[in-house]
Amino acid sequence: MLDIAIIGSGPAGLSAAINGVIRNKKVKIFGNDISTSYLYKAERVDNYLGMFGVTGREMMESFYSHAKEMNVEIENKKVLEIFPMGDFYMLNVENEFIEAKTVILANGITKANTLPGEEVLLGRGVSYCATCDGPLYREKTVALIGDSKHAEEDVNYLSEICEKVYYIPLYKDFGTFGENVAILADRPKSIAGENFVEKLVLKDSELEVSGVFIIKESIPTTQLLKGLEFEDKAIKVNNFMETNMPGVYAAGDCTGRPYQAAKAVGQGTTAALQAVSYLHAKEKEA
Amino acid sequence: MLDIAIIGSGPAGLSAAINGVIRNKKVKIFGNDISTSYLYKAERVDNYLGMFGVTGREMMESFYSHAKEMNVEIENKKVLEIFPMGDFYMLNVENEFIEAKTVILANGITKANTLPGEEVLLGRGVSYCATCDGPLYREKTVALIGDSKHAEEDVNYLSEICEKVYYIPLYKDFGTFGENVAILADRPKSIAGENFVEKLVLKDSELEVSGVFIIKESIPTTQLLKGLEFEDKAIKVNNFMETNMPGVYAAGDCTGRPYQAAKAVGQGTTAALQAVSYLHAKEKEA
Repeated sequence: MLDIAIIGSGPAGLSAAINGVIRNKKVKIFGNDISTSYLYKAERVDNYLGMFGVTGREMMESFYSHAKEMNVEIENKKVLEIFPMGDFYMLNVENEFIEAKTVILANGITKANTLPGEEVLLGRGVSYCATCDGPLYREKTVALIGDSKHAEEDVNYLSEICEKVYYIPLYKDFGTFGENVAILADRPKSIAGENFVEKLVLKDSELEVSGVFIIKESIPTTQLLKGLEFEDKAIKVNNFMETNMPGVYAAGDCTGRPYQAAKAVGQGTTAALQAVSYLHAKEKEA
Repeated sequence: MLDIAIIGSGPAGLSAAINGVIRNKKVKIFGNDISTSYLYKAERVDNYLGMFGVTGREMMESFYSHAKEMNVEIENKKVLEIFPMGDFYMLNVENEFIEAKTVILANGITKANTLPGEEVLLGRGVSYCATCDGPLYREKTVALIGDSKHAEEDVNYLSEICEKVYYIPLYKDFGTFGENVAILADRPKSIAGENFVEKLVLKDSELEVSGVFIIKESIPTTQLLKGLEFEDKAIKVNNFMETNMPGVYAAGDCTGRPYQAAKAVGQGTTAALQAVSYLHAKEKEA
């Protein structure tokens, strides 16, 4: 069982990880490739103390290599849902189930607003994971909404097993796909269906589909962990980065403004040290 | 008038300063030499993301040179007291008076507990500043309590104008002084006097003196700014580093645990950006 599971590989998650490792905890990050971080694309960042005049890419690379120097384990997999199990948490990592004593949420701004129908039909035709749920749609017609090039792998995978795939990319410069993939440069408006997905409504058209895959860089945090308290759309934390759920901490952009690397790094440190205190208190109890 | 006065030149203060400067604000740090920072003495620091395997000294030097690259003004002077003036704050900087629209407290842990009698006799024989108040004790007998080598300059100065100076160093390896300086390796217990200082009570002896100078790296924050709210001996802040006083922010160790550079840097960033928002809101009002 992990001591600390960290969701997100940006500055907050990496900072939490190095601090957990220093305190001899079994730590693992679940995250995306560092190139997907907003910071990575910044032309110049001057306000992270001690690094003057660097590009976002240089900064992210130095963050990443620091974590690697300290043997932080980073898995490029998506955590789909986190379940409270009493004394620990169970993570659904692309349908592999992983246990952790504490969780640090460092999943950034989940900019994505959910579509009308998305939450209610999740698990009933709406899926956040093609690898997990793809086989349920063999020889059926599905739609996939993707917010980055990383979703294209899932489009290819689904095109192999489904009869038809409508792909709605929310970014530019998308690739080319097999014959049974139709690309729609349209905007998703809602997902409809009585008990199960029946159609995806776009701004200019409607698609009759059996399944809608929503493949974004991050799962909406409201879906990720039920029962978590929010304030102004950010995860509600106190000065020690504690959320309302015992053993669950949050750090970085997901806790709200300012959206700054330094703040994320600082909160990551605080969250990890608080998780360590929690683990020690639990050990004494036992 | 300064836009942002920053008290403290550690990681929190330097981080606040570079962020204020980036946002085109008139910023000034009042602080000690960086070598007085605890961090400076750390043999190795591995948990500030992006800097792996550095000494505390290397880290502080890179922090300092970042601030210098950005033309941050740092004045090695002590702020003795901060007075709320309605729309701005007035700082007593070793008896020079400086105005600032906002204040960021980044003065670290003021480890010093005050002595019994210290607060009530402050300004009535108790002083935190030899340069300021020394002339009042010409040809009198005074005591000076110092917590670092930096206090020795004040001992020398007082020995020139006072009849006798008792020096109580709270550190080892102190220097040598003039003939009218008596060094006491004793521990201060209290300051006594009816309306004005009459004596300094030490563990093993009592000294009849007209003045007691307490020269520490940092002024107790309770003395620095009256009316500031505390919680568990730390300055009470919300997630935006706002204190209970409008336009006053706090960052770093002075806001409580964890005492970590990363947390200080992050809070410094947040405090500065919040001060900037406050300044802009005020401008719009006007």
